[in-house]
Amino acid sequence: MSNADTVREYLLDLQRRIVAECARIDGGKFVKDKWAKGRDETLQGDGITMIREDGQVFERAGCGFSHVVGPALPASATQHRPELAGSGFEALGVSLVFHPRNPYAPTVHMNVRMIVATPDNAEPVAWFGGGMDLTPYYGYEQDAIHFHSVCKNAVEPFGADKYPRFKAWCDEYFYLKHRDEQRGVGGIFFDDFAESGFMNGFALMSSVGDAFIDAYMPILKIRMDTPYGDRERDFQLYRRGRYVEFNLVWDRGTHFGLQSGGRAESILLSMPPLASWAYQRQTRPGSPEDDLYKKFLVRKDWV
Amino acid sequence: MSNADTVREYLLDLQRRIVAECARIDGGKFVKDKWAKGRDETLQGDGITMIREDGQVFERAGCGFSHVVGPALPASATQHRPELAGSGFEALGVSLVFHPRNPYAPTVHMNVRMIVATPDNAEPVAWFGGGMDLTPYYGYEQDAIHFHSVCKNAVEPFGADKYPRFKAWCDEYFYLKHRDEQRGVGGIFFDDFAESGFMNGFALMSSVGDAFIDAYMPILKIRMDTPYGDRERDFQLYRRGRYVEFNLVWDRGTHFGLQSGGRAESILLSMPPLASWAYQRQTRPGSPEDDLYKKFLVRKDWV
Repeated sequence: MSNADTVREYLLDLQRRIVAECARIDGGKFVKDKWAKGRDETLQGDGITMIREDGQVFERAGCGFSHVVGPALPASATQHRPELAGSGFEALGVSLVFHPRNPYAPTVHMNVRMIVATPDNAEPVAWFGGGMDLTPYYGYEQDAIHFHSVCKNAVEPFGADKYPRFKAWCDEYFYLKHRDEQRGVGGIFFDDFAESGFMNGFALMSSVGDAFIDAYMPILKIRMDTPYGDRERDFQLYRRGRYVEFNLVWDRGTHFGLQSGGRAESILLSMPPLASWAYQRQTRPGSPEDDLYKKFLVRKDWV
Repeated sequence: MSNADTVREYLLDLQRRIVAECARIDGGKFVKDKWAKGRDETLQGDGITMIREDGQVFERAGCGFSHVVGPALPASATQHRPELAGSGFEALGVSLVFHPRNPYAPTVHMNVRMIVATPDNAEPVAWFGGGMDLTPYYGYEQDAIHFHSVCKNAVEPFGADKYPRFKAWCDEYFYLKHRDEQRGVGGIFFDDFAESGFMNGFALMSSVGDAFIDAYMPILKIRMDTPYGDRERDFQLYRRGRYVEFNLVWDRGTHFGLQSGGRAESILLSMPPLASWAYQRQTRPGSPEDDLYKKFLVRKDWV
């Protein structure tokens, strides 16, 4: 098996495992949509979209696998290897965003990916990226601590520097500059990882992928049945508007994907099922909504 | 009075007139929010935001006036005058987006603006821009024809070439490339207008601003009381998701404004109060929803 085949197998299995666990918790099936090729002819490839909409637990949960081959690596895909921009490439990944119905249950995002550049006159170069981050509507310290602890344990075997670096990278990346707000309580994020060769990178990526269920599901389970009313629902919809703003304005993958002819419906799996906007919405000092901004949507060491 | 003072007076009066007419139709008052300065220190200026949220007729209607002075004109602001990028500038405008509650009433956008570049070693250069476009959820030929006719009449006195050029420009600009879809039925759009000097440009801009009430209000009035149910409401929310996608991904003003430290809440006046996303939502052939895509969200000569 080629390296890409090995990674493909792993990713397809990861997607199956995550979706099976979610379907079990939700009590309903995900819809499976296999697709081939992007919107235009420059990207070739295939993918599997698994999505649950209007479920008991998940109001919208999308988990996509994709594997594309393109003629020219975009410069934005490899900030640290400008010499590879424009070379042929292969990209494989699993990406998910889950929007639970209950406002006390946080939204979560996870992504793991490998990119292989195949320059004409040199050996292929592979690197890995990934991460996960948590976006609560109502903050719980214990949830943030749990999520970060699992993230830390997943990457620590690869070096003591990894968690602090990837945690800081996550805070940096999932930041809404126009609001001066973090997207959520963070987690880990890394890109361009090629330390110690393919096997080490693949092991790191797999460790992050494998950790997802442990990182998120226990939080979901303790929050998903919390009683709530219009107040919490309204705040959740409003905060989901920020999720939309981040993904469409700042997320390089989303923005670049949409502008360059990627498959819109797959890229926009991350969108919430429903989101609202209101002019200068204020929170009452000392309220749980105010706590979210002051205690959770800030850069903070959780573990 | 300086040219900028003259334009400022006009714009403030235009905002007052439009808001008064909307408040009359809605039966409720707009909230007035005066602000000064942008989010960071690079842009100085002031503005007045007028907004009606959760009204009888308007679910969210924002109309903003702004007047800013900056040290360095962004290249994106003057595509046809690259030599002025980086020079000092002054920008004044009124911008509005109205989202009615009734799904049979279309969303509308209008913007008129003047930009003056003040290079260190040369005379100031002023140009005008603006336009308006209509985004129905349920299409009516007579509405599209009426809207375009008013647009045409507003710009025709400035040359027979104006309406065809500005109409085509609007179709080009309000296009969601990632969906291969027009945002709506179009209207007119122009930028970098400086033909025949200040007075001519100001007259064109005013003619467009003055035409707005005639272009939109008659359509709103005949649609705003149409009975509707969940089906129409669901489709409206879904289509509003496209409005969000356009504004955050493709609209140069919004995207640039948010990335460069503009006032987020003013820039995002255009966001709908509530919007939804669903995976590969289909429409039944021959249904009014299907008609919208096939007969209205396409480039077409309406007059």
